[in-house]
Amino acid sequence: MVRDIAQLGDGILNGERRALARAITLIESGRADHRSDAEALLQHVQSANRQALRIGLSGTPGVGKSTFIETFGMMLIGLGLRVAVLAVDPSSTRSGGSILGDKTRMEHLSRERNAFIRPSPSQNHLGGVARRTREAVALCEAASFDVVLIETVGVGQSETVVSELCDLFLLLLAPAGGDELQGVKRGIMEMADMILVNKADGDLKSAATRTCADYAGALRLLRKRSQDPDGYPCAKLVSAIEQNGLQEAWQAIQTLITWRRDNSHWEARRAGQAAYWFDQEVRSALLAQLNTSDVKQQMADLAAQVSAGEVSPTAAAARLLDGLKAR
Amino acid sequence: MVRDIAQLGDGILNGERRALARAITLIESGRADHRSDAEALLQHVQSANRQALRIGLSGTPGVGKSTFIETFGMMLIGLGLRVAVLAVDPSSTRSGGSILGDKTRMEHLSRERNAFIRPSPSQNHLGGVARRTREAVALCEAASFDVVLIETVGVGQSETVVSELCDLFLLLLAPAGGDELQGVKRGIMEMADMILVNKADGDLKSAATRTCADYAGALRLLRKRSQDPDGYPCAKLVSAIEQNGLQEAWQAIQTLITWRRDNSHWEARRAGQAAYWFDQEVRSALLAQLNTSDVKQQMADLAAQVSAGEVSPTAAAARLLDGLKAR
Repeated sequence: MVRDIAQLGDGILNGERRALARAITLIESGRADHRSDAEALLQHVQSANRQALRIGLSGTPGVGKSTFIETFGMMLIGLGLRVAVLAVDPSSTRSGGSILGDKTRMEHLSRERNAFIRPSPSQNHLGGVARRTREAVALCEAASFDVVLIETVGVGQSETVVSELCDLFLLLLAPAGGDELQGVKRGIMEMADMILVNKADGDLKSAATRTCADYAGALRLLRKRSQDPDGYPCAKLVSAIEQNGLQEAWQAIQTLITWRRDNSHWEARRAGQAAYWFDQEVRSALLAQLNTSDVKQQMADLAAQVSAGEVSPTAAAARLLDGLKAR
Repeated sequence: MVRDIAQLGDGILNGERRALARAITLIESGRADHRSDAEALLQHVQSANRQALRIGLSGTPGVGKSTFIETFGMMLIGLGLRVAVLAVDPSSTRSGGSILGDKTRMEHLSRERNAFIRPSPSQNHLGGVARRTREAVALCEAASFDVVLIETVGVGQSETVVSELCDLFLLLLAPAGGDELQGVKRGIMEMADMILVNKADGDLKSAATRTCADYAGALRLLRKRSQDPDGYPCAKLVSAIEQNGLQEAWQAIQTLITWRRDNSHWEARRAGQAAYWFDQEVRSALLAQLNTSDVKQQMADLAAQVSAGEVSPTAAAARLLDGLKAR
């Protein structure tokens, strides 16, 4: 088994997409032996110490996210870059699968040798989704992808996960009346390094221009952050269908990232994210002690006593904790 | 010390307000010896097994919450009831103290022999606020108060705490244009058993009537809950200043509570709440293991290694957990 893992790791380091896909399946597994293999694999590939540009991308259904990823990804590939696309969607269990659906959603990109597209697994636990995505990003970096796009839907908590994973956060919006500005949660606006107003084409062009100006104004009202150069966060017009504005958006991304690298914000952000995930892992590992079947049984028994008023919640909790420590 | 606690407990059971005030100070203390005294005290008074009607009350600043509590409380006292008022405000550290401020906020009520008013302590940890409030409610019940009003401001998380503590949740609102309906968070609307539109007096009377109709419509759109009789949740007009509508509101409360008692919803809700708090206590007790100074130091060391890329967040977390278990 150990030799298998080393082989798999070498395949990833050689940039083999099939090895990458197998490795992501391994890290998604819930089996304990798979978990230890996954840890060993991550340790193995981490030694290469490769970094991609991690771009978070959020946008509610209907804004044209798939088309944007398709055309933006194709443009990057045209520039000689290797592009991976991952999805974070804790709600995907509801729709019974992945937000990426089958690969027809990104028809051209999925056929490219230098692209790797991985749908979101159906897991309903955000903590699990977060760890899986974090590890999948690390594997994509080890496989020498230059850009990792981490896609999510605008549901709030998954945005926090993505913003703690990415170097730069894009928010994709559709043209709308000014009164719909409030539809975007303030927290998500504050995470965005760049807002792209899509569908700046055909009948929607003037609405898109107005929307873009509205959001540019809204962004100016948000406090300027020290990790940004002048003019950021910014709002830009794009048309994924007509392939307009994509190069300008990529240029703006490059400008921002170069500035952050030059001013040590890149490394500081990654270090802060690593510390954040360590903290999250510690908390979820502690709470995972409650998930064994005998602890669950013990909790159910105590909960019944608490509900019946025989013991206070605090005293019952203390009793359970004593039991856990005595193990 | 044990005799002191028994004496204090007896004072509470005799309905002495001074003993109640001292006991709440005890449960608010962060000292370990105070905590064990507090547990003993709660155990002592729980034997009396007394229950008050616990009413949660939420409303943003400016809706006239203090005036409402003052006049509503005075009306209840006029009916021969004993009334306790507690505040939950995790944000009170910001304003440097209590949302209840000094007792001039409820001038008449605070002078009543059958009233007990306790401001929110300045604690910034919602978990601590929740436990303190839960225990203070239990002490007020032991001291034979008939109604315990648990007041909070509309900031979201504290509403969840209050709704898991009370038998019935009131939302106090001010008259507003129909377009401001969205200002109330949907989650808080869903918790409310009754919406009271205050300031139905003078120039605001017609605006209040419109607002009340708007909210009544909004409540109809929310799913009917099985623990409600026909016509609930409902919206009513009140004027705290002119003391109008308060008796009708109390009547509607009585109708709802009688129905819930008759249909076992009262006991089921309290049992569910006890189980909820047990679960919360277990989680916070587990996480409290991270708050000792040596664990904090260990976490800081590991976080530095994680930030430097020397170890993965998951591996570092596993290392910390092994250390905790070996204690």
